[in-house]
Amino acid sequence: MTDFKPIPGGVLAAKDFVAAAVHCGIKKDKLDLVMIHSLRPAAAAATVTQNKFRAAPTYVTQEAVADGNAQTIIANSGNANCATGEQGLLDAWRMAALAGNATGVEATEVIVCSTGHIGDLLPMDKVEAGIAEAAAKLSRDNAELAARGIMTTDSYPKSCAAEFEVNGVTCRIGGIAKGAGMIHPNMATMLCFLCTDVAIDAKLLRQLLVDCVEHTFNCITVDGDMSTNDTVAILANGAAENETLVYLEDKGSDAFQAALRYVCTELAKMIAFDGEGATKAVTIRVTEAESFEEARAVAKGVANYNLCKCMFYGMDFNWGRVAAAIGATLLDVDPARISIEIQGIRAWHRGVPERFDLQAARQLLRDREIFVKISLGKGDAEATVWTCDLTPEYITLNAEYESAEPA
Amino acid sequence: MTDFKPIPGGVLAAKDFVAAAVHCGIKKDKLDLVMIHSLRPAAAAATVTQNKFRAAPTYVTQEAVADGNAQTIIANSGNANCATGEQGLLDAWRMAALAGNATGVEATEVIVCSTGHIGDLLPMDKVEAGIAEAAAKLSRDNAELAARGIMTTDSYPKSCAAEFEVNGVTCRIGGIAKGAGMIHPNMATMLCFLCTDVAIDAKLLRQLLVDCVEHTFNCITVDGDMSTNDTVAILANGAAENETLVYLEDKGSDAFQAALRYVCTELAKMIAFDGEGATKAVTIRVTEAESFEEARAVAKGVANYNLCKCMFYGMDFNWGRVAAAIGATLLDVDPARISIEIQGIRAWHRGVPERFDLQAARQLLRDREIFVKISLGKGDAEATVWTCDLTPEYITLNAEYESAEPA
Repeated sequence: MTDFKPIPGGVLAAKDFVAAAVHCGIKKDKLDLVMIHSLRPAAAAATVTQNKFRAAPTYVTQEAVADGNAQTIIANSGNANCATGEQGLLDAWRMAALAGNATGVEATEVIVCSTGHIGDLLPMDKVEAGIAEAAAKLSRDNAELAARGIMTTDSYPKSCAAEFEVNGVTCRIGGIAKGAGMIHPNMATMLCFLCTDVAIDAKLLRQLLVDCVEHTFNCITVDGDMSTNDTVAILANGAAENETLVYLEDKGSDAFQAALRYVCTELAKMIAFDGEGATKAVTIRVTEAESFEEARAVAKGVANYNLCKCMFYGMDFNWGRVAAAIGATLLDVDPARISIEIQGIRAWHRGVPERFDLQAARQLLRDREIFVKISLGKGDAEATVWTCDLTPEYITLNAEYESAEPA
Repeated sequence: MTDFKPIPGGVLAAKDFVAAAVHCGIKKDKLDLVMIHSLRPAAAAATVTQNKFRAAPTYVTQEAVADGNAQTIIANSGNANCATGEQGLLDAWRMAALAGNATGVEATEVIVCSTGHIGDLLPMDKVEAGIAEAAAKLSRDNAELAARGIMTTDSYPKSCAAEFEVNGVTCRIGGIAKGAGMIHPNMATMLCFLCTDVAIDAKLLRQLLVDCVEHTFNCITVDGDMSTNDTVAILANGAAENETLVYLEDKGSDAFQAALRYVCTELAKMIAFDGEGATKAVTIRVTEAESFEEARAVAKGVANYNLCKCMFYGMDFNWGRVAAAIGATLLDVDPARISIEIQGIRAWHRGVPERFDLQAARQLLRDREIFVKISLGKGDAEATVWTCDLTPEYITLNAEYESAEPA
């Protein structure tokens, strides 16, 4: 068998997890509060944004997973609880206490996330009522609702799940994520919640999550803007009752790793391709680099170069903009060793421009999926970055956004 | 008196310089070739893009100024002569030889610049005829025409001139520049040509130009995209007949430095504020930084954050996006020491969000000129960066661009 198999069930595909999503009134008329809960103690890990202006809940989340355990996730949309000073931190801790109380766990076992407008205090009365309501509605049936509940400008709910085997025992992992602007994770606002029933040591869980995020969520970009609230969190409750995975070398660790990578890759691609206003799904693959980091930096340079993004939108085969973007990274790359291919058409090969049929090439850009391949001619490392085009709709969406009166 | 005085005359304000601009047929029906020539030998300096995929002419220009002398500038628009391989380099050298021959100087005394589409070979027959025509039309009266001749998507010609005194002798400096997309000089395609009649040693000229570019052209950004062709070049022909400036400490060096800074600042601001599709002129000032470099990096981080650029366009007082942009630079800054002000309204002060009238604040964003002030609370260095908003027109302009069939 392969290492894993895609399955339905979304974020609740694994055993002994429940979820709920409610409208508590932060937003006008959309779901704005999601709760996910493990029915048994769970190992936990999380990575949060590196933004220096990061939001209050990211501090609470780091505290929650510091001991390797957490059992409840509470997340609101419509308000980022960022740049809210001392009060914002108190509010984030209060969310943890309320959600913990409602689900029968300590406040320090609660992962807290917020996404939305920066600079306003949370309406805590609404949040408090919402947490009580969500806890009352926790159920195995709410996977789809939870995926909808964390959406902001996403055009569709994003979830994915897979099953895999550890020593003959079937385990499951499922996740949900939201984008869709301000996506340049490092981490960059994207949120992703993963629930697995594999039994795994918290240290190994953390190691595998960090590595996975580097190759998935940290390989996507919508607009190059790093957010203040990004969080990827995972709960592993052991309900599958496999022999606990402790070391990377343990039999089954590779299967879990593969399933985790698959789910995160799918969710990351959904986020990138569903960027605000996007009309194109762009994959940029860089090969023959000296390191994964170098390959990713070149790919991200192209992915974030506005003139390339406009070209994908405009469907012009202006490969020179890709060359300019590579050069603009200021990395130690040599045009005389580089090859550039778009939709399988080689435009530049090791210092020499190639002849091709421009009309035919242009036609290939009418596909929704765009593939750019760049070979650096230096080594054997590679990386793939996923992104979208830049469209007038992105700007309209982000320009029409109206800040609300401060609370 | 002040150090310098603005004067008319553009790029030909200084003595013994002539210019011409012609249409040679690279573009459909616009001026596409400009020649500037000093009637006497001149000290020369130039800075070119750091882009690794930089265009062929930038190599020729570096060679030309390596010995500190140059006398003629030849520049075409409509074709960047970039990513053109060996033939591109030969073509750039041929442009130098043709322009040198036409103006009676060695090929190595010619600064060559190109701007336009990347990846196509220059139509050298047209360029050759154009250079001959331009040389025949060289005149003191063509300052305005030269400014128009280097325009690509600029909405208006950009020129500026000033006079200053060196030991009682009046000297002049004038310049022209072009933007308007792909502007993130480092150098990032902007071109700027400066002509001065001050007598100055080539070494000092170079030192002052490099320093000036750091604080002017390297402080502007339109879209964060670094171009392959950027060049700032200066010719100093000594026609003012002042005592030659040799050292920074020489009397009059400061006056020249001030006039140079003034002309370059004005041209840089014109480029930034005339970004493709721009509706806003945005100035970002960062103070209390540890170094100029740190201050500039924070200012550029905000200037290039697409969500901030959209906010300026949308005129929403969403100051949290400025906070997010500062944090996303990943520099060692502390929100608890930072202050953020937009249009004089303080929104965040040393860790605490401030109360303000959102409607009144929003009203202030209706101005064309937007001022953002950020204090880092760390040191006493500062920097100013000039930029514009990001608009649907930018994308339309860059998406509708059509590559021509390869030659």
